[in-house]
Amino acid sequence: MNYKKIVFGVDVGGTNVKFGLFTYPERELIIKKEVKTPQANQNELLFELIFNTINELVQSNQFEMSQVHGIGIAVPCPVKGGCVGKCPNLSWENMDIKDKVSQYFPEHVKVEVANDANAAALGENESLDNPYNNAILITLGTGVGGGIVVNHKIHEGSSGMGGEIGHMFVYEESKEVCGCGSVGCFEQVCGTKGILSYAKDLAKSQQTSINLSEITVKDVFDAAKTGDFVGKKVIDRVAYYIAKSASILAVTLDPEVFIIGGGISKAGQYLINQITIHYKKIARFTSGNIPFILAHTGNDAGIIGSAHLI
Amino acid sequence: MNYKKIVFGVDVGGTNVKFGLFTYPERELIIKKEVKTPQANQNELLFELIFNTINELVQSNQFEMSQVHGIGIAVPCPVKGGCVGKCPNLSWENMDIKDKVSQYFPEHVKVEVANDANAAALGENESLDNPYNNAILITLGTGVGGGIVVNHKIHEGSSGMGGEIGHMFVYEESKEVCGCGSVGCFEQVCGTKGILSYAKDLAKSQQTSINLSEITVKDVFDAAKTGDFVGKKVIDRVAYYIAKSASILAVTLDPEVFIIGGGISKAGQYLINQITIHYKKIARFTSGNIPFILAHTGNDAGIIGSAHLI
Repeated sequence: MNYKKIVFGVDVGGTNVKFGLFTYPERELIIKKEVKTPQANQNELLFELIFNTINELVQSNQFEMSQVHGIGIAVPCPVKGGCVGKCPNLSWENMDIKDKVSQYFPEHVKVEVANDANAAALGENESLDNPYNNAILITLGTGVGGGIVVNHKIHEGSSGMGGEIGHMFVYEESKEVCGCGSVGCFEQVCGTKGILSYAKDLAKSQQTSINLSEITVKDVFDAAKTGDFVGKKVIDRVAYYIAKSASILAVTLDPEVFIIGGGISKAGQYLINQITIHYKKIARFTSGNIPFILAHTGNDAGIIGSAHLI
Repeated sequence: MNYKKIVFGVDVGGTNVKFGLFTYPERELIIKKEVKTPQANQNELLFELIFNTINELVQSNQFEMSQVHGIGIAVPCPVKGGCVGKCPNLSWENMDIKDKVSQYFPEHVKVEVANDANAAALGENESLDNPYNNAILITLGTGVGGGIVVNHKIHEGSSGMGGEIGHMFVYEESKEVCGCGSVGCFEQVCGTKGILSYAKDLAKSQQTSINLSEITVKDVFDAAKTGDFVGKKVIDRVAYYIAKSASILAVTLDPEVFIIGGGISKAGQYLINQITIHYKKIARFTSGNIPFILAHTGNDAGIIGSAHLI
């Protein structure tokens, strides 16, 4: 029997729910588990699943419920004070998740809830060897998102919409409507769709080594790294808009670091270098010195960040 | 003899230093005083002036130094943890203002220091009948500045550069270099210079009622209100860029209110209405509901905000 305290980080996605069991207060990961998200009646089945899985992980790892200090939960929708207004992915509406989950557990178990991108920002920062006080995560994938960490805490904002970085209005030239219903979002130019459609457009008038019939973002980056004109031009535009958006966040929020995550960040140091070239030209005052680093937790940012909510 | 506690708000400008004596904790203004800023040897003369003026205000208002709970000081440069890196207006470099001022006063007197625009944001919000938890002040004048209030506190940022709203890169079309050394700043399109030069440019090809030889921003707004084409077009551009910048701040910081201050805000509800028309079109998600209100403290925002630092 181990007398240590433990915490859980739970990352609820539309497809899977990830669980991490961590020591407390060190927050070292002991074990992970992933289960399918219930596809119906999510109000109750999901909360039962969370309780059952945690209960099972506690027992199978020779802990007791009395050792569980708390449970952090990341969900794919805006969160304010533990409550969710609308969550289309999970068919939730006006739900007090913190209260719902708390009801399944003994009173001593603290429960905290956060938006998943915000939790990931916290996870990426707090798991650094030397976490920063103030950090901003920019995640690049199908969507562009992120989170703002101020004094080691998530900036949730007044309605839970804080850190919706992908919808900053920075892409003036945009003519299409974004998923958010507006025009000109950062996500429209730096998300997967924006990247691929720009590559295809350029390829109409330019020679390229990219196989356009099965094009992926990785292909575009690989081509750019080998000097392909279309690849280079596409990545240059992506890097420019990341730098532009970061420069705006720099003069308003004044973070110590920008962490670049999401599938597109697999382009690695090449992407960081391209962003930095543009950023140094655009950034004001001393903000030009803020570094860009790659996210390092892979798919664990959500559970790590959730564990840090407690 | 009055046994109440009091606090001072001090707003240090390049020309004048403003003092406000407030009750504590209510922070009701009892008396104001304004004195000239020493123009030489500011390291010591200014701190002596602050001590002497506060001492004099304490005595002439029948208080005692033992009743002074604290002194908040606003200065025209970035501040981090009471320290100033560089302040060209006051020839300061790497100065611990909090420590310097503290040395003049008994130990029980708390001293806090903030950037003046940030202090103004705090002052505007906290002096509302119902202060918001999260507010953003946008000040429009020769320069464009502002401050970010999160949970009733100034967002100072990691190096004191938080809230430099006027240097958000939102004016892509800009071809001139801003005072900050960069291009495309919000200030370049919505500051006095940007407004007047656009009006003059338009007047080259359009009839206008504005007297171009002695043009002021007020003239442009007055003309717009009477339906003058040039005036309307200029104000429309100003309102658009305020709305655009606010929309970016909305999805990242998620405030409850935007407060519009500075000389240009004297255009009043007409300006608010024009901003709101653009903002409703641009804003994402529910952020379109965030209201714009006019600043209401006049020139007292700095002393009020400083008094709220304590």
